[in-house]
Amino acid sequence: MTIKISIDCMGGDHGPSVTIPAAVSFVNHEPDAELILVGLEAEIGAELKKLNAHNHPRLSIVHATEVVTMDDPLEVALRRKKDSSMRVAVSLIKEGKAQACVSAGNTGALMAVSRYVLKTIPGVDRPAICFPMPNQKDSPTYMLDLGANVDCEPQHLHQFALMGSALVSALEEKTKPTVGLLNIGEEDIKGNEVVKQTAALLRADHERGILNFYGNVEGNDIFEGTTDIVVCDGFVGNVVLKASEGLGRFLKNIVKSEFKSNPINMLGAIIAQGALKSISQRMNPSRYNGASLLGLRGLVFKSHGGEDAFGFEWALKRAFDAAKHDVLAKISTTIAALMPAQEGTAGAESTGVTEPTQQKSA
Amino acid sequence: MTIKISIDCMGGDHGPSVTIPAAVSFVNHEPDAELILVGLEAEIGAELKKLNAHNHPRLSIVHATEVVTMDDPLEVALRRKKDSSMRVAVSLIKEGKAQACVSAGNTGALMAVSRYVLKTIPGVDRPAICFPMPNQKDSPTYMLDLGANVDCEPQHLHQFALMGSALVSALEEKTKPTVGLLNIGEEDIKGNEVVKQTAALLRADHERGILNFYGNVEGNDIFEGTTDIVVCDGFVGNVVLKASEGLGRFLKNIVKSEFKSNPINMLGAIIAQGALKSISQRMNPSRYNGASLLGLRGLVFKSHGGEDAFGFEWALKRAFDAAKHDVLAKISTTIAALMPAQEGTAGAESTGVTEPTQQKSA
Repeated sequence: MTIKISIDCMGGDHGPSVTIPAAVSFVNHEPDAELILVGLEAEIGAELKKLNAHNHPRLSIVHATEVVTMDDPLEVALRRKKDSSMRVAVSLIKEGKAQACVSAGNTGALMAVSRYVLKTIPGVDRPAICFPMPNQKDSPTYMLDLGANVDCEPQHLHQFALMGSALVSALEEKTKPTVGLLNIGEEDIKGNEVVKQTAALLRADHERGILNFYGNVEGNDIFEGTTDIVVCDGFVGNVVLKASEGLGRFLKNIVKSEFKSNPINMLGAIIAQGALKSISQRMNPSRYNGASLLGLRGLVFKSHGGEDAFGFEWALKRAFDAAKHDVLAKISTTIAALMPAQEGTAGAESTGVTEPTQQKSA
Repeated sequence: MTIKISIDCMGGDHGPSVTIPAAVSFVNHEPDAELILVGLEAEIGAELKKLNAHNHPRLSIVHATEVVTMDDPLEVALRRKKDSSMRVAVSLIKEGKAQACVSAGNTGALMAVSRYVLKTIPGVDRPAICFPMPNQKDSPTYMLDLGANVDCEPQHLHQFALMGSALVSALEEKTKPTVGLLNIGEEDIKGNEVVKQTAALLRADHERGILNFYGNVEGNDIFEGTTDIVVCDGFVGNVVLKASEGLGRFLKNIVKSEFKSNPINMLGAIIAQGALKSISQRMNPSRYNGASLLGLRGLVFKSHGGEDAFGFEWALKRAFDAAKHDVLAKISTTIAALMPAQEGTAGAESTGVTEPTQQKSA
């Protein structure tokens, strides 16, 4: 079964010099993948030639004349750059030409464009960003939302829990993945009103057998792997994600600097180079690259803007796996079974940016 | 100049078996310290005897008949256990017999008891928990609030910034420590309404030369040491603190397990044992033990409940340094110069628990 993925090749800090080598490597390793490379044709073509991949049967180019930069305001991405590689790549899903899309571009712009082009799944008020964090158990802790929604109401966190649960049950093949609600204590009385009301909704779902709600979890539980999914608002999630990246880099630097501190330690490092290499790999955030934008009528994945080809390829792999496991249908089915469809709430109004010239789709 | 510190010797997971050895070690290293050991006299006496310190001229015991356990609800700590070691230790500050107090007991109970006994500084609506996080620059990032206030208004975050700034300028002898506001992006338009309004208050202070406001910071900035102080609400702060502890343990385990994975790596570990020991020390959270409860009319420090004697001694050191640098007067002066005193807002009502039998002090 062929899976078609559209790639915004111009996005991220490095553009085609990273996205094209990643695409070529991925398509060579994955015989079921077909990749549509979107962006400035000349630049993409030149990169492909360098890698001797310009005639690859499962790579095609779709030309797009504009590029959304990391600094572009949402309005520019949405209203002015209608022929951006990002928008064209996302639109290929809508047109049925791709099953998933990957971009390393500006997260806010990618969310706004995806939401505008694809709309949300009926029953989902707000899409969320979901990311697999590493943990002690060596199976990821899927955390959402990681920054799409700074203020959340209980029903939003409730929807995040349902979407996360559908994603993990599809991707990790767990029938009843556990859901934890991020809080500042395990007891029911802890936390703010939003968290307490969310817990009540999740408990009700648990009693109805819809969700495997574990209860409140704390910050440390993310890395202990206490639950498969951790639900939080986008403010908290984004801060935790970035703090973890910062702490990881800090600790990695400590390890590096200590082993270089004197000749004896350097000798030890040479002898135990296998251990150090393995530590470096396990602490490498690229292995966890690729966040899902959940709740849209299409699979969109965001790669970290600063990632190299190795990291970008991980994001491609995640998109491929999600399409292969039919994550979209599973999320839609889960939400549809529980929520009354609210056609009116989906779409452009809720991104805070409207585009009057384009027709609104259903 | 002698600094007197009262110690709740019964608090924490281990009680006198940890607090007494820490106290004895600290008093032996610090000739200007005088420690008042509060708790069950027989238990404290027995531990002192074990260490041959029962006649130490700068150690005294104050008997308290009750103990606040880690599981006691706030009401129990506040209303029922009036002769708890925690409450008696805090009261010694109020009575002018100690300049600072240290407890490893339940954080919520310690905050409620301290707030009830000591009251807040005029102009401070809510006390906050402040903790020095390690960073790349090897000078701590002071972060507050870390869990006392789950919902904050802009004026609360504003007060946290002022208190944190006064604390750091006293402790670290920096005249103009930098203040960052934790957010999900550096741009002014990022974040929720509370954060945006707080930024406006902090910018105004900056323009008046009262505060050195850096602007918004992100999660990674905590560990990069971008600013001396990072201000956030207690929900976010608590989650970040616990997530960091969890990630730190996780990464430490990776280092350990890789060096034990085969005989060659083990040999390397033996040769580079100096590096590994140093890594372990630098990754040891005990070095950073001791959180300040800021905004009270007295210096109260909280040690992590699970710490050993080494960690508890760090908390004693922090309390000693704060008293020595007259942190309390500096915070009170800073706040008094900026805020109109609000006598009515301080005290017991705001803890959510009232104690009708005890007279209210000014």
